[in-house]
Amino acid sequence: MKLATLKDGSRDGQLVVVSRDLSLAHHAAGIAPRLQAVLDDWSFLAPQLDDLYQTLNEGRARHAFPFDPRLAMAPLPRAYQWADGSAYVNHVELVRKARGAEMPESFWKDPLMYQGASDELLGPRDDIVCPSEEFGIDFEAEVAVVTDDVPMGTKRADAGAHIRLLMLVNDVSLRNLIPAELAKGFGFFQSKPATGCSPVAVTPDELGGAWKDGKVHLPLVVHWNQVKVGEPNAGEDMTFDFMQLIAHVAKTRNVRAGSIIGSGTVSNLDRSRGYCCIAEKRSLEMIESGSAITPFMKYGDTVRIEMFDDQGRSLFGAIEQRVAPPAKR
Amino acid sequence: MKLATLKDGSRDGQLVVVSRDLSLAHHAAGIAPRLQAVLDDWSFLAPQLDDLYQTLNEGRARHAFPFDPRLAMAPLPRAYQWADGSAYVNHVELVRKARGAEMPESFWKDPLMYQGASDELLGPRDDIVCPSEEFGIDFEAEVAVVTDDVPMGTKRADAGAHIRLLMLVNDVSLRNLIPAELAKGFGFFQSKPATGCSPVAVTPDELGGAWKDGKVHLPLVVHWNQVKVGEPNAGEDMTFDFMQLIAHVAKTRNVRAGSIIGSGTVSNLDRSRGYCCIAEKRSLEMIESGSAITPFMKYGDTVRIEMFDDQGRSLFGAIEQRVAPPAKR
Repeated sequence: MKLATLKDGSRDGQLVVVSRDLSLAHHAAGIAPRLQAVLDDWSFLAPQLDDLYQTLNEGRARHAFPFDPRLAMAPLPRAYQWADGSAYVNHVELVRKARGAEMPESFWKDPLMYQGASDELLGPRDDIVCPSEEFGIDFEAEVAVVTDDVPMGTKRADAGAHIRLLMLVNDVSLRNLIPAELAKGFGFFQSKPATGCSPVAVTPDELGGAWKDGKVHLPLVVHWNQVKVGEPNAGEDMTFDFMQLIAHVAKTRNVRAGSIIGSGTVSNLDRSRGYCCIAEKRSLEMIESGSAITPFMKYGDTVRIEMFDDQGRSLFGAIEQRVAPPAKR
Repeated sequence: MKLATLKDGSRDGQLVVVSRDLSLAHHAAGIAPRLQAVLDDWSFLAPQLDDLYQTLNEGRARHAFPFDPRLAMAPLPRAYQWADGSAYVNHVELVRKARGAEMPESFWKDPLMYQGASDELLGPRDDIVCPSEEFGIDFEAEVAVVTDDVPMGTKRADAGAHIRLLMLVNDVSLRNLIPAELAKGFGFFQSKPATGCSPVAVTPDELGGAWKDGKVHLPLVVHWNQVKVGEPNAGEDMTFDFMQLIAHVAKTRNVRAGSIIGSGTVSNLDRSRGYCCIAEKRSLEMIESGSAITPFMKYGDTVRIEMFDDQGRSLFGAIEQRVAPPAKR
């Protein structure tokens, strides 16, 4: 099934079920007030939502209305955890190569992951607000999963059952703040502002055969200012699958329901597939010609991130964000 | 006022108001179901809670009952953000000196901060569960604030008004996992398991004159296995006050209500005040004798963290946690 959260002026919005083709929505408040509540009690509530979803798809739902992604918040407008991996290790290697840094061999075996901020997750049409264009504003197109409760010590073999939902995310990065921040040794902080999310989150069965071995075997299509810049296949070159990423998070702690775990920028070794973040393009330019030519995003720039099934149907709806300065106060 | 969250089998517990002397509690469900809801709408709900608090302190509350910290969850059992600073820079300098690393001069001007996991925060008597004693289990006694909504770009001068609550935290660290994790460049992850919290969170006015310039000017008392090992004054040697820490978090993003921002391990230059984490003790040993003698915590070890006003009254109640292996499944 497909679930979304609609803006209603509140912090957590209104949970709705969305039809498979993303055309219709139906309020689900009679079943659960918000998505977090569903994740808190998945086995009891999800079947009820799924019944509504079937009814909606069959055109029999009594109070269906058009689904407008412009009114969507993030599926979880605020979450208790956002942990982002760098599962496409060839991307990590490339970026490091561009700045002349060796990549430790261990990066192929031990997932790289950072703890992100989850107190404000952006809806698919919310602006990317940034105080300065000089910060090096970049998008990062990713796939993410949402888990239920994962007990400490859960291994890869048992982690798959904890994946309740999938969605797309735009892990916005402020590239020019990263070097100084990583040099301090404590990881990203100011360099990772609020993350954008796709209009709907979907259960794994919605992906059919494309969801296999903890990976989504479909291209992730990225447009920057209406120009297609990337369509790498998210199922290829993913060194760590989502089960491995979940096991990594759960090694020393319980992972509680509603945790969002990201893949990191999708990236294929086949460079003809383009890029999911500008940093990758710039790294390739550095390696080829010694200098990065492509600039980062400017105010007014747009990024569109979407994934289609093999019949060209949008699975999650599109993230479509514009970069903007802070509103005057 | 003083607020706590009592265990009731649910994920978020029951909000209660606690008397100033920590002896009595009163359910607050008629005002707000849980602490997050209060922080979401502070100016409307806090005065109502404060009325109840006054009534409770005056012995006129109709349904008061004994407050038992053993039944307390973390004030926010799950939070949307936990960002921890390292505001006692002399501690950072010491730890780095012990491992032969210079500390960049910028550390005195630009706060060091990491994003922590907040999907599970431990109550004051919850065990510190760790899969292995070999991970180098350490406590870190800290002060933390809880904010309401802090808009992006908020400066230090405006940040103080956003501090709604204060509490103590035990930022448990797995020291032997840290070197490899920091070497990867993305900061702490597995090395920072669930954080423990004091029984109550209190409004700044509860601290009277001890709350000044965004710092708590009182000793933080730490016992390890019933032996007092530290009582540094949290108001001394705090290079960055809480307003600066909040401004740091808000530089590139909105900070949403219920965000917890920590001071980092409290540490005084006056070494006679002892230590708030074992790593500091070990660093001193390294510098003095070339090797660290004091071991990290073992299963069964306890840590007690508490703060008293100048008349010896406990302000937040005590964090009192025991280290334990995971339960057999």
